[in-house]
Amino acid sequence: MKHTIVVIGASGTIGAHLSMRLEQTGHKVIRVSRSSGDYRADITDRASLELLFKNIGTFDAVANAAGDVIALPLEQITDESINFSIANKMMGQVNLVRTALPYIANRGAFALISGVLTDEPILGGVIGTMINGAVEGFVKSAAHEMPRGIRINCISPTVLTESETYHDFFPGFIPVEASKVVTAYERALLGIVNGRIIKV
Amino acid sequence: MKHTIVVIGASGTIGAHLSMRLEQTGHKVIRVSRSSGDYRADITDRASLELLFKNIGTFDAVANAAGDVIALPLEQITDESINFSIANKMMGQVNLVRTALPYIANRGAFALISGVLTDEPILGGVIGTMINGAVEGFVKSAAHEMPRGIRINCISPTVLTESETYHDFFPGFIPVEASKVVTAYERALLGIVNGRIIKV
Repeated sequence: MKHTIVVIGASGTIGAHLSMRLEQTGHKVIRVSRSSGDYRADITDRASLELLFKNIGTFDAVANAAGDVIALPLEQITDESINFSIANKMMGQVNLVRTALPYIANRGAFALISGVLTDEPILGGVIGTMINGAVEGFVKSAAHEMPRGIRINCISPTVLTESETYHDFFPGFIPVEASKVVTAYERALLGIVNGRIIKV
Repeated sequence: MKHTIVVIGASGTIGAHLSMRLEQTGHKVIRVSRSSGDYRADITDRASLELLFKNIGTFDAVANAAGDVIALPLEQITDESINFSIANKMMGQVNLVRTALPYIANRGAFALISGVLTDEPILGGVIGTMINGAVEGFVKSAAHEMPRGIRINCISPTVLTESETYHDFFPGFIPVEASKVVTAYERALLGIVNGRIIKV
């Protein structure tokens, strides 16, 4: 069955690979980014999300690949770095779901993103681990309260092979190719699982 | 060895039991609550925490038993209910640690609180599960970056036997007596574990 899938963060490494794969397998992709794509929206800007979902018409799934957190050693963490990260990767994703929920089709699917830091701390990753914990908690619990057969899952990738500038911050981590992360998104979007954290 | 232990939320069920146990076993307890105790402070009010730790002198440990979240079904969640919960149980605890860190003794210990919702969702518990995930993430990662041999752990209790008004919201959960939760705090405060989520 072919789906209409909204990809948020479609200009990033994961988002671009995901959009291409979904199109290649016959799905309709609506690419959304802050500054390019079919539609513009910013997950930290609730009004831009409202506008997006009002305008794009029917869709079956939302795949999010956007969301930043700030990396700082524990004793250098500032209020600003925490607030930025909460507004971005945490509440950005939660509000994405809340905003899209009235518009998404029956039996639709959400795929959010966390990351390997949830279970494997790295130096400077305190905010990242905290925010991932919140995102995964949201997914695990919201899955049980989703209306109309809608599902929600979370993709948790380790550092990407393609993101070489990050590799030094992940010593002893075996990077994963974006193509494999994309496959995890496919399982979340096109399968039947719900409330799962899919590690890849 | 006898310790000086700051108990935050000392007037609540867990905090009161914990304070009593610690005193009975020979420790010095500094009781802190919003409106009673040896000192007044509110974990959502950073300035009140600064004042607290400047004024109380040397201490070996901080045990937190304070922190609220709002319970609402997924589709009734509001921005206000999320923001309240972030400021309270999530950032209240994170800021408690950040504020106390320069003052706590070498080889000191923090014990924060999450709860059973992290792994066992209940109806209306989406915000609770999300916030617990953030708190546990903070503890798991911050533990590796704590200076001066300081430890941090998290107590995750199920619903309390003593909190009968909550029992209907936790169908099929076996409640735990506050005295057992207190024992978990003792392990976190007086043992050697670090970065652990102690479920009780």
